[in-house]
Amino acid sequence: MEESKKFLLQEKDIPQAWYNVMAEMPNKPRPMLNPATKQPLTAEDLYPLFSEEASKQEMNMKDAWIEIPEEVREMYKIWRPTPLVRARGLEKALDTPAHIYFKNESVSPVGSHKLNSAVPQAYYCKKQGVTNITTETGAGQWGAALSLAAKHFGLALAVYMVKVSYHQKPYRRSIMETYGAEVIASPSMSTKAGRKIITDNPSYQGSLGTAISEAVELAMSTPNCKYALGSVLNHVALHQSVIGLEAEKQMAMAGEYPDIVIGCFGGGSNFSGISYPFLRHNFTGERNTRFIAAEPESCPKLTRGVFQYDFGDEAGYTPLIPMLTLGHNFAPANIHAGGLRYHGAGSVVSQLIEDNLIEAVDIAQLETFAAATLFAQSEGIIPAPESSHAIAAAIREAEKAKEAGESKVILFNLSGHGLIDMTAYDQYHAGDLVNYQVSDEQVLANTKDLEKII
Amino acid sequence: MEESKKFLLQEKDIPQAWYNVMAEMPNKPRPMLNPATKQPLTAEDLYPLFSEEASKQEMNMKDAWIEIPEEVREMYKIWRPTPLVRARGLEKALDTPAHIYFKNESVSPVGSHKLNSAVPQAYYCKKQGVTNITTETGAGQWGAALSLAAKHFGLALAVYMVKVSYHQKPYRRSIMETYGAEVIASPSMSTKAGRKIITDNPSYQGSLGTAISEAVELAMSTPNCKYALGSVLNHVALHQSVIGLEAEKQMAMAGEYPDIVIGCFGGGSNFSGISYPFLRHNFTGERNTRFIAAEPESCPKLTRGVFQYDFGDEAGYTPLIPMLTLGHNFAPANIHAGGLRYHGAGSVVSQLIEDNLIEAVDIAQLETFAAATLFAQSEGIIPAPESSHAIAAAIREAEKAKEAGESKVILFNLSGHGLIDMTAYDQYHAGDLVNYQVSDEQVLANTKDLEKII
Repeated sequence: MEESKKFLLQEKDIPQAWYNVMAEMPNKPRPMLNPATKQPLTAEDLYPLFSEEASKQEMNMKDAWIEIPEEVREMYKIWRPTPLVRARGLEKALDTPAHIYFKNESVSPVGSHKLNSAVPQAYYCKKQGVTNITTETGAGQWGAALSLAAKHFGLALAVYMVKVSYHQKPYRRSIMETYGAEVIASPSMSTKAGRKIITDNPSYQGSLGTAISEAVELAMSTPNCKYALGSVLNHVALHQSVIGLEAEKQMAMAGEYPDIVIGCFGGGSNFSGISYPFLRHNFTGERNTRFIAAEPESCPKLTRGVFQYDFGDEAGYTPLIPMLTLGHNFAPANIHAGGLRYHGAGSVVSQLIEDNLIEAVDIAQLETFAAATLFAQSEGIIPAPESSHAIAAAIREAEKAKEAGESKVILFNLSGHGLIDMTAYDQYHAGDLVNYQVSDEQVLANTKDLEKII
Repeated sequence: MEESKKFLLQEKDIPQAWYNVMAEMPNKPRPMLNPATKQPLTAEDLYPLFSEEASKQEMNMKDAWIEIPEEVREMYKIWRPTPLVRARGLEKALDTPAHIYFKNESVSPVGSHKLNSAVPQAYYCKKQGVTNITTETGAGQWGAALSLAAKHFGLALAVYMVKVSYHQKPYRRSIMETYGAEVIASPSMSTKAGRKIITDNPSYQGSLGTAISEAVELAMSTPNCKYALGSVLNHVALHQSVIGLEAEKQMAMAGEYPDIVIGCFGGGSNFSGISYPFLRHNFTGERNTRFIAAEPESCPKLTRGVFQYDFGDEAGYTPLIPMLTLGHNFAPANIHAGGLRYHGAGSVVSQLIEDNLIEAVDIAQLETFAAATLFAQSEGIIPAPESSHAIAAAIREAEKAKEAGESKVILFNLSGHGLIDMTAYDQYHAGDLVNYQVSDEQVLANTKDLEKII
């Protein structure tokens, strides 16, 4: 009998509702605070910044299932459902008894999972009559996704792109421009926040935190304009749950259930998306799956950050968020996984780590590129540097299974392909990439003045 | 009721056999000739160059169906079956009554249809004990595909990449290297053919014809080494028939049958792949579908070439092929659709055009990028510059349908995505791209001394 390589759903299997983990997690996330009053925020407090629907979703601790609008499901059909793939080639290369599966989110037209949240965020803005949106982007994955979604729903979009990525990844800028968006390298002179940073440090290469400050400032100072964020927040994790919901059906087609679920970790969007739909079965005691968030060694907020109230951005424009953080002034090294260069984790992930419901590992840059190359040669797909963190973590677990002689079932999310990141591969092959460690002193210096969580 | 956007098959629907148009076309293609003796070639004559199985397939005029080996189908499962997509976004943007479908071959890990033939060619080499293979590549699509297939079957590969593409498309070089292939810019000093061309014209930017000469020379002078070609030849068109065979099932799922089938045209691999499985129903009189090959205005062999015996390569190493040709010394302009910069068409396509069974159109570079941008913004996928020729031809037909008020069903092949071609889009947006016309004098000068077809 022929063995299945891919497990494929039909369009009718695209989920009808997103899964909202906040309704079912044992300890709710702590509330976001108004930085001036230190009072918990309400959904209404977010209306100036986000669409009303996204604001409500952000605060919804009650409904485990939230209906996906018809218009959103229609646009999801451009690339969803995505395949679940049995990584037989990688298993063979590792000679492991583990069964390795990956959810292939790289098949979206922009090459990553980011479109899952870009579509509803743009849709909700359009629905309430917004005409302009702003955002930030690191590696350019989120910016590309929002550019396509904005074009689809007829919104004008300005994207602040982290300067180092703007120069390292010019193709992503071209992609956004092809979809009709305006792209600005951040820090820029176009905002107060950007001007201050450039004045203080003219050679600063930018960070997600800085770019967020600029995008938020532009949104707040422009009529009929909202801001959209690609990660960290609860409504983003909500939208990304389509990944895990589809994967759950597909694992059932394969006749297996994961012992371990893995996602790379920047702000949490793809990790949350693949994990929470499976995590809900841990809440009920029905399953005992391990969940591993794989972050870069150079930006280790989950493994070495502090759990305190911090700003989501460099300039301190956002609410105070209860997060595992390296401090909002932490400047991560210029690794190629630009999408993982963010100082903090969302409130839900942070709470789940505090409660020992999920785990985290940090991985050095060179290990991620070795894993990526092995994956490319054995499975064909060249992964994004970000996703390579999940692959490296999966390989570690597959090797442990081999040592222990156990047939574990490992599922990871391939959040994106790396076809637009070939410069990074070039540098890796040339031996020009290095690892970046973070010292305890660095972490302490950036976190000692944060608002304590009581 | 929800409307379907994509028509998706399962792995079991990957065809079990390829369709060989030569067995059923009314007038067989004329034979290839030995350039020295002018005698028709046999399969055995090709053994020094190609694998024996590919050589036999090249000459097979008898079997309409040729079984796909199990190992090939297994590797096809990495990305096949590919989706058939109803281009509802494009239809809406054009406000056309036409129904537009595209077969999305861009979902392969290398981003194009080329892997369909790379896999069996590498497999047949491996099966007969070959250890090394060589090839040429234009835009890099074929080279990337063969690199992955060679790695999968454990073969060492050297790729001669057309110099202009080597520099315009460095990412494709990195992709090939990531899969473990060696890439050489052509013309190079590593072969007699390359040295001669460089000596005659030191600034020559290369062509597919030149790169083929170099790859053939290396294969012929290296022990246990074969050559693999990504287009033009009959066995390549055979392998590509999986595209049309899947599309035929998927059009049936959609409840429609194409009035018009369109593919872009370089050497004919993707055009043949999408077309021949539908064309067979024209042979029987059961259908009356139109088939349109869309070629670049700057390399118009189908619309303005001569039908004569010509070499497949610059240096004259190949057999004489009966082809619509601009002459093997024709040097096409440096358009971004590098995969379409080839002087001739395969013997089958040439015969089918002679017999008025298929049509051809030529399209200017700027029209293709306008079509590509409209497609990207309405369907999400940024197309390869090559594939944009098919899109432009489909748009022309959809607009004709609108003028005539007819609801035509149009099917085109999206042979690849353009995520590695963003430099070209950058130049288009900046207004830096131009059209390139070919004069009658150029065509005459390059074709007047060719071997006449009697």
